[in-house]
Amino acid sequence: MTSPTATLLISCPDQRGLVAKIANFIYANGGNIIHADQHTDFAAGLFLTRIEWQLDEFNLPRDLIAPAFNAIAQPLQAKWELHFSDTVRRIAIWVSRQDHCLFDLIWRQRAKEFTAEIPLIISNHPDLKVVAEQFGIEYYHVPITRENKQEQEAKQLELLQQYKIDLVVLAKYMQILSGEFIAKFPQVINIHHSFLPAFVGANPYHKAFERGVKIIGATSHYVTDNLDAGPIIEQDVARVSHRDEVEDLIRKGKDLERVVLARAVRLHLQNRVLVYGNRTVVFE
Amino acid sequence: MTSPTATLLISCPDQRGLVAKIANFIYANGGNIIHADQHTDFAAGLFLTRIEWQLDEFNLPRDLIAPAFNAIAQPLQAKWELHFSDTVRRIAIWVSRQDHCLFDLIWRQRAKEFTAEIPLIISNHPDLKVVAEQFGIEYYHVPITRENKQEQEAKQLELLQQYKIDLVVLAKYMQILSGEFIAKFPQVINIHHSFLPAFVGANPYHKAFERGVKIIGATSHYVTDNLDAGPIIEQDVARVSHRDEVEDLIRKGKDLERVVLARAVRLHLQNRVLVYGNRTVVFE
Amino acid sequence: MTSPTATLLISCPDQRGLVAKIANFIYANGGNIIHADQHTDFAAGLFLTRIEWQLDEFNLPRDLIAPAFNAIAQPLQAKWELHFSDTVRRIAIWVSRQDHCLFDLIWRQRAKEFTAEIPLIISNHPDLKVVAEQFGIEYYHVPITRENKQEQEAKQLELLQQYKIDLVVLAKYMQILSGEFIAKFPQVINIHHSFLPAFVGANPYHKAFERGVKIIGATSHYVTDNLDAGPIIEQDVARVSHRDEVEDLIRKGKDLERVVLARAVRLHLQNRVLVYGNRTVVFE
Amino acid sequence: MTSPTATLLISCPDQRGLVAKIANFIYANGGNIIHADQHTDFAAGLFLTRIEWQLDEFNLPRDLIAPAFNAIAQPLQAKWELHFSDTVRRIAIWVSRQDHCLFDLIWRQRAKEFTAEIPLIISNHPDLKVVAEQFGIEYYHVPITRENKQEQEAKQLELLQQYKIDLVVLAKYMQILSGEFIAKFPQVINIHHSFLPAFVGANPYHKAFERGVKIIGATSHYVTDNLDAGPIIEQDVARVSHRDEVEDLIRKGKDLERVVLARAVRLHLQNRVLVYGNRTVVFE
Repeated sequence: MTSPTATLLISCPDQRGLVAKIANFIYANGGNIIHADQHTDFAAGLFLTRIEWQLDEFNLPRDLIAPAFNAIAQPLQAKWELHFSDTVRRIAIWVSRQDHCLFDLIWRQRAKEFTAEIPLIISNHPDLKVVAEQFGIEYYHVPITRENKQEQEAKQLELLQQYKIDLVVLAKYMQILSGEFIAKFPQVINIHHSFLPAFVGANPYHKAFERGVKIIGATSHYVTDNLDAGPIIEQDVARVSHRDEVEDLIRKGKDLERVVLARAVRLHLQNRVLVYGNRTVVFE
Repeated sequence: MTSPTATLLISCPDQRGLVAKIANFIYANGGNIIHADQHTDFAAGLFLTRIEWQLDEFNLPRDLIAPAFNAIAQPLQAKWELHFSDTVRRIAIWVSRQDHCLFDLIWRQRAKEFTAEIPLIISNHPDLKVVAEQFGIEYYHVPITRENKQEQEAKQLELLQQYKIDLVVLAKYMQILSGEFIAKFPQVINIHHSFLPAFVGANPYHKAFERGVKIIGATSHYVTDNLDAGPIIEQDVARVSHRDEVEDLIRKGKDLERVVLARAVRLHLQNRVLVYGNRTVVFE
Repeated sequence: MTSPTATLLISCPDQRGLVAKIANFIYANGGNIIHADQHTDFAAGLFLTRIEWQLDEFNLPRDLIAPAFNAIAQPLQAKWELHFSDTVRRIAIWVSRQDHCLFDLIWRQRAKEFTAEIPLIISNHPDLKVVAEQFGIEYYHVPITRENKQEQEAKQLELLQQYKIDLVVLAKYMQILSGEFIAKFPQVINIHHSFLPAFVGANPYHKAFERGVKIIGATSHYVTDNLDAGPIIEQDVARVSHRDEVEDLIRKGKDLERVVLARAVRLHLQNRVLVYGNRTVVFE
Repeated sequence: MTSPTATLLISCPDQRGLVAKIANFIYANGGNIIHADQHTDFAAGLFLTRIEWQLDEFNLPRDLIAPAFNAIAQPLQAKWELHFSDTVRRIAIWVSRQDHCLFDLIWRQRAKEFTAEIPLIISNHPDLKVVAEQFGIEYYHVPITRENKQEQEAKQLELLQQYKIDLVVLAKYMQILSGEFIAKFPQVINIHHSFLPAFVGANPYHKAFERGVKIIGATSHYVTDNLDAGPIIEQDVARVSHRDEVEDLIRKGKDLERVVLARAVRLHLQNRVLVYGNRTVVFE
């Protein structure tokens, strides 16, 4: 299984023969499929699939796979992405003051739980520079005010370009990205510290405490220009009781946040998440 | 443990010596405490406790316990309730068309998972009369329209009085009780088919599907005149995926609804739930 | 989606082109695939798949599908099963004295959570005859002793044949089936009231209490001649604490047992479970 | 709540007046109880309680509390422990090669999730010295063979004494401590990477994979001279599927191990765990 693989994520209007056509394309070129999963959304009339095959002994050279598949995809009106497992994507982690998700992502990357480079940390606070130094990662302090937001986002975009970043992970970054930013750099995963859509926006643990809930949650989602309303990748929950004060909810929530965010990042990097409309299919 | 017990549920401003004073009252009269639990809400400055003791060899006759304890409670500015474990409370179950919670509650009552009588079922539909007959329970069909709601609620209140009902359980009763009704009969437990406060109101599973959540929930709460906003007694959740259509959410939700409602009813009947503000302390 | 479907469950040595060959077979005959999932067990070198397609507009008549597919399957050395979604399988529920799983399965069948007939209940006790009568199901009391076990199993097999039973569900049947019985009737699903492989055999809740576990479980599995060691279909757990006495574990366990058994039966009836070795692939 | 507190953990034969006597002792000396919880094990005839009160304005000086309480405890035949919340206990973390629990415990200690010092790491391998250096903690490499075990344990005991260690946390230390060691230093918490009592001993994830379980677990317990059979403090589980190979179980298990171990250590340090027989009462 250490052979590199190619993965296609495809969505197209449902019709007969889709599985056969796609599987034939791979088989005809000598590929060995190691993962194939599909989903049909009957209400939307959509067929969605993920197919992964080994590149060893695959006859098509890498640069010809996309054009060759396009010839099949076009008549099917398919939207598709092609990924190679040995492409190492570059992540920028954005933080504010809390370090638990940052530490966790760095630890997992070093433990090879997912394949990626983390060359860049951006923060609106200087506090976590020490963590960046500890692990030899560049740290940029980009403070945000209502007045300077537009120019600072320009600076952030520059940094993403400079460091050739493929994915931004908001690891408890407590600022809202503008619609313009998202339009220019749409690959952003966020962790929200509540069980969305409950407790959108600021201070969800305080709100959860006020409401007297018996379970708290965390949600990882792609960021859109609609606050906390982007496609959900992963959620998880933990039980709480009347004994838990706000600070206990925060503490228990941290354990949720780090696993939920890490799972979402890992699923994304393994090309297991297909977004359509405001929903995700997660091919596990 | 088959000896009958008395239970005090007490809330009062926090102050020194509360545990000692209450425990002394029971000890001085020869009671054997079998459960004592307390909680301090520091923000609210409130002390909340549940204390249960065996009545065998307790020196005070039952009818003197309340006045005797009142002498202690008044100087402490305590609110309190006294319950006896051998009091069999009478439940009215209200339903609409779905039978899963109804069946479940009846089965648990017969399996002695909680102690109560269920002499009365009220529904705004005739459909579940057959279940009532199967188990020998009286069934009243009280259809509700916008026009007749006030007079029908009067009829419902009459039935509750006639059948000496202590607790109304809304077991998927799809009508909203008026504030006037709640004012007259405040002991009402509801099951809401979502993880509150997400998806308040109608069609929560459809809304959950639309939002693309990865986890669904159910919430049991006391009913107030604020829709789906009363004190939460119990919640639970289940994992869902893109494969689950609305009907799957509904099916999985039923399993949640019946256990969450049953747990809340059992906790209430065992006098383990203390409401203060819009919150509950659940002494498990 | 109300059109009848055919489902193939296939396992064969892993090799190139399997997905293409199987998908082509269906596409070439005009079938519309609505579910296709596969799994490769690399250690065992096995390819396992479930594929479901609509029979509307499928060109092959039903009785020719199996022989036609066999021509493809044989060179692949594939083991396979073919099922039609409108085949209504007949279940015999076996019980001892506890009624919770029995009630639950009957309720779900009537609520159409799965498609099956339940014409027969067999018990080694007379207690639950009243439930059978309530729902109009035949009930046979077949008491088992060490001495009469062999002849009683013969009687049980006769009943299964007489009632054309496809699946036996042991819904808290507290007797062990002999290896001979299993050899003659291998389609048996059991619910074991522990998180297997912990607490094999009798009295798992007592053992769990003794061990002081903080979580209890339930396991549904196919029955083999190795006690409580057959392929696991589904498991679930619930949290317990020092406050829970054995009777509380039993009560909480019942809620687990009924959902775990029901899920396993539903998955089996939907042909989503593929057994290989002592393991299952569950195509959800 | 920042005032220091005293906590009594008491177990004694059940009898009338225990709560009153203990509460009176604290009240009479001017203490304000902030947490009191009790449990009665009826089968064992044991009363178990945890009581915590603020030391501000408590009339007894600290060094007189124990002798004063002893006068009450002796006639009750009570076993008891007295702890002060501002005592900072000293932990030695023992590891082998895996770093996830080590990192996690250090992170939590620095994040003040629990109050303790971590002056010492002991390992049978040299690998994690780099982590110790990163956080400025002393690291001793004490390799163990069958031959040198006895003398190496002597060296370990010396280190514990030298560093004034109160608690040893086995954070994936893959050696078995001898009965002699435990007799000399009984305060040891271990994390076992299975849902005990399933999969005792080595390679539990491999065994879990072999058995085809659908859920994996982790267990934190006090170490006794009976392998993996000591009193359980905390357990948790995670769902797995046929898609998870052994390495996935290991990866998912790490997330369990670190939270389960951290919760157990925190509960212990907060004096919330009372051991009796082979069981624990966890006063949460």
